Amino acid sequence: MKIGVFDSGFGGLTVLRALLEKAPAADYVYLGDTARLPYGAKSRETVARYAVSSAKFLVEQGAEFLTIACNTASALALDAIRGAVTVPVLGVIETGVGCAAGVSETRDVMVVATSATVESHAYAAACTVHGLRAIEKACPLLVPLVEEGWIEHPVTAEVLRIYLTELKEQARIAGLDPDTLVLGCTHYPLLRKQIEEMVPRTVRVIDSAEATAERVAGTLELEGMTGKGTAQFFATDSVKKFRALGGRFLGREIDGVELVDLEKERTGNRK
Amino acid sequence: MKIGVFDSGFGGLTVLRALLEKAPAADYVYLGDTARLPYGAKSRETVARYAVSSAKFLVEQGAEFLTIACNTASALALDAIRGAVTVPVLGVIETGVGCAAGVSETRDVMVVATSATVESHAYAAACTVHGLRAIEKACPLLVPLVEEGWIEHPVTAEVLRIYLTELKEQARIAGLDPDTLVLGCTHYPLLRKQIEEMVPRTVRVIDSAEATAERVAGTLELEGMTGKGTAQFFATDSVKKFRALGGRFLGREIDGVELVDLEKERTGNRK
Repeated sequence: MKIGVFDSGFGGLTVLRALLEKAPAADYVYLGDTARLPYGAKSRETVARYAVSSAKFLVEQGAEFLTIACNTASALALDAIRGAVTVPVLGVIETGVGCAAGVSETRDVMVVATSATVESHAYAAACTVHGLRAIEKACPLLVPLVEEGWIEHPVTAEVLRIYLTELKEQARIAGLDPDTLVLGCTHYPLLRKQIEEMVPRTVRVIDSAEATAERVAGTLELEGMTGKGTAQFFATDSVKKFRALGGRFLGREIDGVELVDLEKERTGNRK
Repeated sequence: MKIGVFDSGFGGLTVLRALLEKAPAADYVYLGDTARLPYGAKSRETVARYAVSSAKFLVEQGAEFLTIACNTASALALDAIRGAVTVPVLGVIETGVGCAAGVSETRDVMVVATSATVESHAYAAACTVHGLRAIEKACPLLVPLVEEGWIEHPVTAEVLRIYLTELKEQARIAGLDPDTLVLGCTHYPLLRKQIEEMVPRTVRVIDSAEATAERVAGTLELEGMTGKGTAQFFATDSVKKFRALGGRFLGREIDGVELVDLEKERTGNRK
């Protein structure tokens, strides 16, 4: 079974990392659309165009199941992707919210994500389906802080404090009593420890990456299968940078990254 | 005279703003490649491909002179652009450094810019031509902080303090005595006041946007010409966002932004 994992950049490697732990017997093909990242502040039309070309590429590489590890693409382009390929497609938002629905007792949930994800209200919509009420908050500085490597850094702590205080205030105004916080961006698990230290002990922090890996492994009945699968990596920009920054997200060294030009792919002039 | 102004996004509007003040009689056509921004952390090949398609588009729109208002594109793609179009092309790096060469007495200069600009060492190379020694420092968090609107904000002040302290230490280790600081990214002029308050009074802060506008107006003998020119705006992503965020950089409201798809342009299938 070959599983395609797609993200605009490196964050989706946290999903692949969780998948490699949960289902090490499968084969994986990862694509980071690094030449066009970030998707987080772009329009639905642009994100859908980029995500569809990326999904098609992964299917061309033999993927029989697609994991959209990018929250923004899951929020803005899941239907467009499902309409463009014939293999099953799973997005991080439905799995993250599904996990929240399983643990929340107050049925009130907080979500932190990129601007585009929050503006789409995809998390709120998915929460409604599960009978949850949601408060969403855009945290646009967290991705650049993680990419700067400022994980355990006073500036990041201060930015988190500001965002989480604003989120709490939003919940108070809306009259919600949230007991669950969904990390709605694949960069955020790198700040999980800092975030957990800053929210009350009663608040459960949910990492969509882990939730997605569990769901994929369960759906495909890959749990418990042993064996050593393979992982291929593709990026649309510098493979050198992909190796350097990607390793931080995957938790191990990446080698053998291949460069792909999806703009050429789009018109069929494949290199 | 129709002048094309190109940037990956909104920052170049600070150059257009300065041009509209210095040379209000000219006509302007601005392109923000917002669907593929930011360029600041991407490879030379990718930046050159994007910048060349953008420059060609501006020439198709009638531009007789191109101002590359994007520091990253000026650093990585100026030769590629000059090879691809027949009109004169001016980049912000040569004008910023030219201005520094005119004011620096110690002949030692500091430059703050994006990661890609710093890694290209384009500023250091341009400084060498003018007999200046340069210390360059990547400040990747400043663009997202400006875009978050955190201009007069304690977090931004702390980030600036960290970056400027590291820069000063770099200069000390290199044995330099800089009296000039070049703002090597068109987002940074929005933080000029904060930066000026943080560096010694003896350090002159140079805004490439202003320097470029002066040079363009001088070169084209547009200075002192009166009259009311026109300004057209194109963006490759959401025109709504371009209007909203762009106004902050241009200093006035923007209307009549047109959407353009440069990926289609590239293969000739123009909409």
